[in-house]
Amino acid sequence: MARDTRTYAWPAGKRCAVVFSADVDAESPYLWANRGQPIGTMGQLELRRFGPRVGLHRLLELLDRFEVKGSFYVPGIVAETYTSILPELVERGHEVGLHGYHHEAVHQISEAENAAILDRCLEVFRRQVGHATYGYRSPAWELTPEVHRLLRARGLAYDSSLMGYDHPYSIEGMAEIPVQWLTDDAIYFRFFGSGNDAWHPANPRAVLESWIEEFEGIRQFGGLFMITVHPWISGRAQRIRMLQALLDHIAQYDDVWWTTAAEVAAYHVSSENAAVFEEPMRLVDTNF
Amino acid sequence: MARDTRTYAWPAGKRCAVVFSADVDAESPYLWANRGQPIGTMGQLELRRFGPRVGLHRLLELLDRFEVKGSFYVPGIVAETYTSILPELVERGHEVGLHGYHHEAVHQISEAENAAILDRCLEVFRRQVGHATYGYRSPAWELTPEVHRLLRARGLAYDSSLMGYDHPYSIEGMAEIPVQWLTDDAIYFRFFGSGNDAWHPANPRAVLESWIEEFEGIRQFGGLFMITVHPWISGRAQRIRMLQALLDHIAQYDDVWWTTAAEVAAYHVSSENAAVFEEPMRLVDTNF
Amino acid sequence: MARDTRTYAWPAGKRCAVVFSADVDAESPYLWANRGQPIGTMGQLELRRFGPRVGLHRLLELLDRFEVKGSFYVPGIVAETYTSILPELVERGHEVGLHGYHHEAVHQISEAENAAILDRCLEVFRRQVGHATYGYRSPAWELTPEVHRLLRARGLAYDSSLMGYDHPYSIEGMAEIPVQWLTDDAIYFRFFGSGNDAWHPANPRAVLESWIEEFEGIRQFGGLFMITVHPWISGRAQRIRMLQALLDHIAQYDDVWWTTAAEVAAYHVSSENAAVFEEPMRLVDTNF
Amino acid sequence: MARDTRTYAWPAGKRCAVVFSADVDAESPYLWANRGQPIGTMGQLELRRFGPRVGLHRLLELLDRFEVKGSFYVPGIVAETYTSILPELVERGHEVGLHGYHHEAVHQISEAENAAILDRCLEVFRRQVGHATYGYRSPAWELTPEVHRLLRARGLAYDSSLMGYDHPYSIEGMAEIPVQWLTDDAIYFRFFGSGNDAWHPANPRAVLESWIEEFEGIRQFGGLFMITVHPWISGRAQRIRMLQALLDHIAQYDDVWWTTAAEVAAYHVSSENAAVFEEPMRLVDTNF
Repeated sequence: MARDTRTYAWPAGKRCAVVFSADVDAESPYLWANRGQPIGTMGQLELRRFGPRVGLHRLLELLDRFEVKGSFYVPGIVAETYTSILPELVERGHEVGLHGYHHEAVHQISEAENAAILDRCLEVFRRQVGHATYGYRSPAWELTPEVHRLLRARGLAYDSSLMGYDHPYSIEGMAEIPVQWLTDDAIYFRFFGSGNDAWHPANPRAVLESWIEEFEGIRQFGGLFMITVHPWISGRAQRIRMLQALLDHIAQYDDVWWTTAAEVAAYHVSSENAAVFEEPMRLVDTNF
Repeated sequence: MARDTRTYAWPAGKRCAVVFSADVDAESPYLWANRGQPIGTMGQLELRRFGPRVGLHRLLELLDRFEVKGSFYVPGIVAETYTSILPELVERGHEVGLHGYHHEAVHQISEAENAAILDRCLEVFRRQVGHATYGYRSPAWELTPEVHRLLRARGLAYDSSLMGYDHPYSIEGMAEIPVQWLTDDAIYFRFFGSGNDAWHPANPRAVLESWIEEFEGIRQFGGLFMITVHPWISGRAQRIRMLQALLDHIAQYDDVWWTTAAEVAAYHVSSENAAVFEEPMRLVDTNF
Repeated sequence: MARDTRTYAWPAGKRCAVVFSADVDAESPYLWANRGQPIGTMGQLELRRFGPRVGLHRLLELLDRFEVKGSFYVPGIVAETYTSILPELVERGHEVGLHGYHHEAVHQISEAENAAILDRCLEVFRRQVGHATYGYRSPAWELTPEVHRLLRARGLAYDSSLMGYDHPYSIEGMAEIPVQWLTDDAIYFRFFGSGNDAWHPANPRAVLESWIEEFEGIRQFGGLFMITVHPWISGRAQRIRMLQALLDHIAQYDDVWWTTAAEVAAYHVSSENAAVFEEPMRLVDTNF
Repeated sequence: MARDTRTYAWPAGKRCAVVFSADVDAESPYLWANRGQPIGTMGQLELRRFGPRVGLHRLLELLDRFEVKGSFYVPGIVAETYTSILPELVERGHEVGLHGYHHEAVHQISEAENAAILDRCLEVFRRQVGHATYGYRSPAWELTPEVHRLLRARGLAYDSSLMGYDHPYSIEGMAEIPVQWLTDDAIYFRFFGSGNDAWHPANPRAVLESWIEEFEGIRQFGGLFMITVHPWISGRAQRIRMLQALLDHIAQYDDVWWTTAAEVAAYHVSSENAAVFEEPMRLVDTNF
């Protein structure tokens, strides 16, 4: 067990990294959940459109106030429905990355379908904002060995869907920029009112407390603090205030590397960390 | 994305609006859920009757203390069961609006049934409190393009069931006075004890914190702060205290327009906002 | 709506009443849920036996410290399994009342079965602690018109299972001493770990805040503050501390009538309140 | 009811005991839940591997800072997958105990299978860290009379799976070192994101408040404060901070016996407590 007590080596002067990421889903998960059956109601569509109409703009203004660049993962259908999103994000200096076409659950469709979706998304990104080495975040944060291989085969910059460490690591040589459920806004605030929600929207002060505690711990242990928000959720007024308070808290430290997932991945693969924190692809035997 | 960074234009001197609304459901959602099968138990009926017996009166006294007029949405069956409700609300200067007859889920019944229900409700309202241009809030806050068209065809003043902005907007020319799940009391406090509740009643202080944060954000961004309560839920003693504290907080500001949904809608359609924030009726294609 | 703005008339010098009640369920709800199928596991049985082994004693010592008499509702099977419970409660001056035999859900069994269960419970009580005019609280707080009639036919002192007011009232002439979900311990703290719990045990400080807010509101509006605890739940160490803090808070007021449900019921039926707050038995028509 | 008002007799100078225990599950419950069907996804595997990769080390360093020895329950498959875990735990002076092979639910498999699993686990432990009188904690904290008998037949030191007291007791002569749901980390923080979670991860400050209240109550009543954590859950940065704060709080008292479950069990069976708090094996009759 000796190896893992080693801490992750960040650039000189930095104790930890912070990435502000957004999954710009808009209507896409709802389309995926209702694929093949017509949608006849307006409620959830309007609720989700608050994202591209209002929430995304508030988030961009918030990041501007802190002079921070974020990492925005945009499903293909969202980019094609709201055609100004990708160009404006790139123009303002933010990273954009892949996030499925219809926000598909990658483990529920075939490898061939996953390959076609990746290529279709790359085509949309290249057409709208040009060629680049894009990063990838899977919809719903699930991955299979087959999809992981497809990402590597296409030379994508990194994956950002798994939680095996709280700092960057590598799987089969590809950078993994880990997410974490506890710093995802949706699990606290998403609410559809359909009768199927498992809890009510959280008090944003309680979430702020929890996130500040996680940030302090990540800084203490030298990890990556990955925030994930959704414009239709965190664009709501009280949550912009919560994020403002969180960023105010982080901004008091000089030893925090505030950057994008793409920059973290580039640093990771060019550093000794890539070898130290390399994990094999390893499923398990349940035939017992 | 340029348009939406424009802020909503409120009357001179006002930064935002506040509407205190109540869905006076009493037994009606329970009747709808059990339609066609006899109800043989007393528990939920008594629980819900706390609303017309006690809760509604406490809410009216609370509003009187702040000299505020509210917007009360009353199902037809409730108006016909408790015949003093509509007349007393109107006499005390509050707005009354439509809310279904048996608190029907509009997307689960036919367009013809929806049309008949709207006409039946209008007949009840006209008989009890006279002709007026009533506003509409759908039971359970769901809407379809067909029902939206029925509302427009009857010349209703506005709809108040959707969440596409956090200020008024228009859909196909009709004012939408948006609600929001996070400022609805039921999602935090409703509890039936039937073994099917997904969470226990919230601590009212935590809800107060969350609502004050939302109000502060709405005031910051220039939106509409729409509170929705239910007499059988928020009429409980601790929640009247919570609402008192919330209204005390809001009352400290001079730049808040404290009004009814009807007045907000009338202002909206007569202002430039109606053109700036006009959205088309647009469903989506899930045939992929 | 004029009548209900009248406040409940308490004895001279008292603004409100407080009743500390306990449902001494022990294993009984688990037996009822598993009736007809053998129980082969020890987990929930041991968990629930913490009540008669430890929790009940801690509660009794707590009440002694405040010199308060409580109202304890004991299922017949519990009284027959732990034969010292009823006698000790009576000897220490507390009220004991009926609570089903196997903690049956009264609406899931026939009227004849309900009648037999009531008579069986009365027989157990009379045998163990003598003849008295016992009060009744239904298991799971559900009631039917048929069971209500059975209670009246047996001359029981009151029912304490419904929530139509937050002060005593009458239904068909029998006193109703209302309970309330929000001041029941089980909905916040009960946890079985079976994978079916809908939420984790609450922070007792948050529940304390909520209960104090409810007490303050009940005192303000002149109602009845009915606390309900379960020995196997509230006998846990942190919850005894929470209850101690709650009772400390209440004890600071001189205008609180701290009493039993039986005494509240006796007062109610002998006062003008019984006529003012009389409600008919009224189910509803769902044949639409 | 007289007997149980007796308090548990701790060693001279000690008012209560504290045991810090960990269930080192890693992937094992996921394997058990998916037995017989192949696992094709990476999400939960990576999430759980955070435990052996990172979380366990952080917990060990935390205990070292307080010079505390913990009790670690390790499934056989985990010990065989991560072969350094058992030896390192023993080398650092901690107790190790049995916890199933594949984290089986003991009540869902036959007595013969349970016997074979116990023997297989004992063989792994003996091979990796030698012969000792190991203690036992059942996976998922469920037990049957048959498994209890198997534990006794093998001379295991104690069981630690039940909740019938909040101090040690005996069942059929074998020491029971009780756990408690409310001081288990998993029920507050475990989150899979699969759409089946019943609540979001708790604010660690609220859990800290609740646990401190329980500790204070246990100290007041003279019980055993049993903390249970899981490395993949409590190894997360914010939770290590929470545990640090909890241990800081406990460390201020001189009258707390901070020890392992094995030492508590040895004390229990050698003291008068074993006779005072002896309970029979007793299931119940549900044939009514």
